[in-house]
Amino acid sequence: MSQFVRPIAQLIEQLAQLPGIGPKTAQRLAFHLISTKKENALALANAIVEAREKLRYCSVCCNVTDEDPCRLCSNPVKRDPSVICVVEDPKDVPALERTREFKGLYHVLHGAISPMDGIGPDALRIKELLRRLEDGKVKEVVVATNPTVEGEATATYLARLIKPLGVKVTRMAHGVPVGGDLEYIDEVTLSRALEGRREM
Amino acid sequence: MSQFVRPIAQLIEQLAQLPGIGPKTAQRLAFHLISTKKENALALANAIVEAREKLRYCSVCCNVTDEDPCRLCSNPVKRDPSVICVVEDPKDVPALERTREFKGLYHVLHGAISPMDGIGPDALRIKELLRRLEDGKVKEVVVATNPTVEGEATATYLARLIKPLGVKVTRMAHGVPVGGDLEYIDEVTLSRALEGRREM
Repeated sequence: MSQFVRPIAQLIEQLAQLPGIGPKTAQRLAFHLISTKKENALALANAIVEAREKLRYCSVCCNVTDEDPCRLCSNPVKRDPSVICVVEDPKDVPALERTREFKGLYHVLHGAISPMDGIGPDALRIKELLRRLEDGKVKEVVVATNPTVEGEATATYLARLIKPLGVKVTRMAHGVPVGGDLEYIDEVTLSRALEGRREM
Repeated sequence: MSQFVRPIAQLIEQLAQLPGIGPKTAQRLAFHLISTKKENALALANAIVEAREKLRYCSVCCNVTDEDPCRLCSNPVKRDPSVICVVEDPKDVPALERTREFKGLYHVLHGAISPMDGIGPDALRIKELLRRLEDGKVKEVVVATNPTVEGEATATYLARLIKPLGVKVTRMAHGVPVGGDLEYIDEVTLSRALEGRREM
């Protein structure tokens, strides 16, 4: 890296921290950013700062949002508040919204139970989910964690916790390929999986 | 994109402008940037701003630099000022420096002659190169433009311009694969190509 002057070396170093960006790509991106129009480069810097400053977690569903409660939680006329779909990750919400199949609300756990990585139930937003079930208005919880070992473990854990409260717990139908990642599954498969959900 | 709140959508949009970053990768990077430690995300934003604010062109060799003249041009004791290596791009300089073979100075053209893209000789830093040859101290110009059609055309153009001034003009030896890009060639090949340079 010593061949580069400090500001370039630093930019390359920072870009190389991004997931899936190796040193060669980081170098290419850095030289793009210093040779493109100044306003384009600064627009990216700005977008990063703005995202970090404006985004927080919705106090209801724990999704990332720029207003609290988030647009989905504060729009109960169009959405059915009696069904909550539980996902692992904020990016799973737009993936499900794209199906136009689900009209309920969401709850984002921010992870899945994974003893191997030291992630227990307490590290997830499960307490917040249980609080939403207290007033008895929620009739069904659709557990849409990823079809991985961790996601299945989380689903089983949630079912055991929520069923005693008299709330129906459903899991996405098979159709979701095992070992996959919700975020990358096409809309049709996701729609089928939602339609065929079964009680746990 | 409408599934994302505005700060996320904007960040994805800005990331997708980077070369080689498609919408899916942009989305993945955006969610990484909003879920990683805040200081990491801001460090990247900062590095972009700093690079754009601190970097300018060296008034001698036209390379990007944070001090003027740049470290190579202002260090003539260790470098031989009688040889100038002409490259297309700032990123070609570290590629050549890595060979530890070349001890002269550089000149960055910022492109190559390409009539198809409307880039004529006037768009390149050729005037600045000719000015460096005026005092007669430079004995040799090594033309290290890329071994592409545009790079070869630029080399031929420069040779025709510089040879009448009584300066030796050399071109990198064959060994550089035709159609390649200097930046991605390994050090050994670059060293061979420098050793075997021939007069034009």
